[in-house]
Amino acid sequence: MRIAVDAAGGDHGPAVVVVGAVDGARRFGVDLLLTGAEAEIRRALAGQDVTGIDVVVADAPETIGGDEQAAQAVRRKPRSAIAVALDAVRDGRADAMVSAGNSGAVMAGALLKLGRIRGVDRPAIAGHLPSMTGRTLVLDMGAVTDPRPQHLVQFAQMGSIYTEQALGVARPKVGLLSNGEEPSKGNQLVQETFPLLASAPGIDFRGNVEGNDITRGVVDVVVTDGFTGNVALKTAEGAAALINATVRDRLTASPIRKTLAALLQPAFREARKDLDYAEQGGAPLLGIDGVVIISHGRSNERAIASAIGVAKQSVEGDVPGTIARLMARLEAAPQPAAASG
Amino acid sequence: MRIAVDAAGGDHGPAVVVVGAVDGARRFGVDLLLTGAEAEIRRALAGQDVTGIDVVVADAPETIGGDEQAAQAVRRKPRSAIAVALDAVRDGRADAMVSAGNSGAVMAGALLKLGRIRGVDRPAIAGHLPSMTGRTLVLDMGAVTDPRPQHLVQFAQMGSIYTEQALGVARPKVGLLSNGEEPSKGNQLVQETFPLLASAPGIDFRGNVEGNDITRGVVDVVVTDGFTGNVALKTAEGAAALINATVRDRLTASPIRKTLAALLQPAFREARKDLDYAEQGGAPLLGIDGVVIISHGRSNERAIASAIGVAKQSVEGDVPGTIARLMARLEAAPQPAAASG
Repeated sequence: MRIAVDAAGGDHGPAVVVVGAVDGARRFGVDLLLTGAEAEIRRALAGQDVTGIDVVVADAPETIGGDEQAAQAVRRKPRSAIAVALDAVRDGRADAMVSAGNSGAVMAGALLKLGRIRGVDRPAIAGHLPSMTGRTLVLDMGAVTDPRPQHLVQFAQMGSIYTEQALGVARPKVGLLSNGEEPSKGNQLVQETFPLLASAPGIDFRGNVEGNDITRGVVDVVVTDGFTGNVALKTAEGAAALINATVRDRLTASPIRKTLAALLQPAFREARKDLDYAEQGGAPLLGIDGVVIISHGRSNERAIASAIGVAKQSVEGDVPGTIARLMARLEAAPQPAAASG
Repeated sequence: MRIAVDAAGGDHGPAVVVVGAVDGARRFGVDLLLTGAEAEIRRALAGQDVTGIDVVVADAPETIGGDEQAAQAVRRKPRSAIAVALDAVRDGRADAMVSAGNSGAVMAGALLKLGRIRGVDRPAIAGHLPSMTGRTLVLDMGAVTDPRPQHLVQFAQMGSIYTEQALGVARPKVGLLSNGEEPSKGNQLVQETFPLLASAPGIDFRGNVEGNDITRGVVDVVVTDGFTGNVALKTAEGAAALINATVRDRLTASPIRKTLAALLQPAFREARKDLDYAEQGGAPLLGIDGVVIISHGRSNERAIASAIGVAKQSVEGDVPGTIARLMARLEAAPQPAAASG
C-alpha cells in the first residue's frame, strides 16, 4: 500500500511533514509518495532512515496558500502538491492521500479529481475528539457550512459506517448536536433534521446531544453542520490552551512549585498524550470516492504519522466502497427519511 | 439596592442558592428578596448570619421544571419563583433579578413582565469566558437560535455597551464568530452579517474570529447566534472536564505522584479559580428593560454570590438605560447598517 502525502502542506513546513510521513510509513508498514518542491523534500529525506520503505518523490512546485480561494486554486495549479497527490490516488499510483494544507483546496480537489460517492450530496470532514470513554467522531468539521437536513442524515450514515470500520464498534450510537437534549431544542436545521434521523435507515439515532456530551462520550458519532462543528472544535482547542497556560503559570509561580511540577512531568506528559489531537490522527473526508485524510494545519510529526495510520485503516476497511454499498442499498430500498423530508 | 433571587432555581436546590445569595449580599452590600417555597427558604436562612442584610422572603410555591415549555410555564404559573421575582423588578420592589432556573422561562418571563428595550428585536444572553488577556464577552449564549443579520448587529451594539459599563473598557473590540478569519468565511448568516457589522455605528468591528480566539482574548466581544454560542460554550466546558479528569487520573496513578500532587494542591486550586465560570458570575439578559441575570444551572454558592455582583454592577451602570439611549440615538440617526440590510 502506498500513501500520497502533501509535503508542502501544514504550518511547520516540509521537513516536519516528511519526518512524520517516514515515521508513519515505518510504524504502519506502508510506502510513500511525497508531493511538493522536490529539492526541499530530498533535503528533508536526506537525514532520514528509509530502509524498507519505498519512497517516491513527485515534484509539485506550485504552492496553494492557506487563504487562497480553494476551488480556483486547485484548478489553476495542476502542479500543486495537493493536485499531484490527488492525481496519484485517481490513477492508482497511491491508495490514499494525506494533507495538512489548505483544507478547502483538498476538498475542492478531491471533488474534482476523485468525485463523490453516488448517493452522497455533500462530503464531510469527520474528526475524532477524545472522550471519557474513548473517542467521539464529530462530523462535519467544516466542509459544509449550510447543509440541508438530508445532508445531516447522510453524515450520520457515513459516520456510522466509518466508526464501524475504523473502531470496530458495532451499531454506533448517533447523536445530533443541539443546544438542549429535548427533541424540541435546536435551531431550525436541527429541528427539521431530528425527525429525519429518527426514521433514517442504517443508523442508531439516540436523539439530541449537547456540546459537553462530545467529550463525555455518550454517543459514538455526533452529527452537526460544518460551521458549528468547526467553531466547537476550535473553541475546545482554545479552552485547552488556556487551561494549559493557566496551570503552567500557577505551577511555576515559586521555586518549590517548579521543582515539584518537574517531578510530575511524566504524569503531565501522559495526560497530554491521552488528550492530544495528534494521537487522534487525521480526519477523513467521507463521501469522496477515495481515501482522503485531512490533517490539522498545526500538525507536528506525530500527527502526520498518525494520519498515515488513519489512511491505512480506511484503505484496508475500504471505507469508500462500504459507504458506496450502503448508499446504493438505501437508494434501492424505500426511504422513510427521504419520503418524510 | 435590593436583588431578587430565584431561590427555587438551579440543580443544587434552594439551600445552595440561599447561602450564595446571602454571601453575595454581604460581599456586595445589597439587600435581598428571595422567591420560592417559603418554608424551604426559611430553613436555609436559619443557619445563616444575615446581620446588616435586609432579607425579604416572597412565597412562590409553584415550580417550573427544567424541561417545561418556557413561555407557557411562566404564564400558567404566576406564583413560580421566576414570575414572582420578575414581578418584584417590574413593580420596583427589587432592582434586579438573578436566576439559575429554567433559562427559557426566565427569558419568556422577562419579555412578558419587563418587556424589550425599544430598538432591540431580540434580547441576548451575554456570558463572560476567561481568556489569556482577561475575559471575553460572548453573545448570544442561547436565547436566539436563528437570528437574522440585523439581530447580530444589535448583539454587537449591546455587548459593546455592556463591556464598557461592566469592565470599563473604552471602545471594546468586536469580532464575529466564524469558521475562518477571512471575510469570505462563514455560513450564510455570518456572510450576510459581516458587511452590516463593518458599517454599523457604535461598535469597533475587527472582523471574523475563530473559536480558539475566544480564549485567546483578541477581541472584547464575540458575536454569534445562540445555537452556536451555546454549543461552543458547552463544548469548551466538556473539554475542561475531560482535561481535569485525565490529569487527575495521571496524577493519582502512583503513591509518589499522589503525594507530589497533594503538595501542589494550592497551585491547582488557584488555576481552577482563575478559570472557573463561577468567578465570571452570571450572564445578563441584554435588551430587556430591566436587569436580569441568568446563572448556570450548575451554579454553586460562589457562582450565585458572583451573579449578585454582576447584577449590582448592571444596576449601578444602568445597563438597560444606556442600551435604550444608544438605540434611540441610532434610530434617530441615519443607519447605514439597516439601509444596506
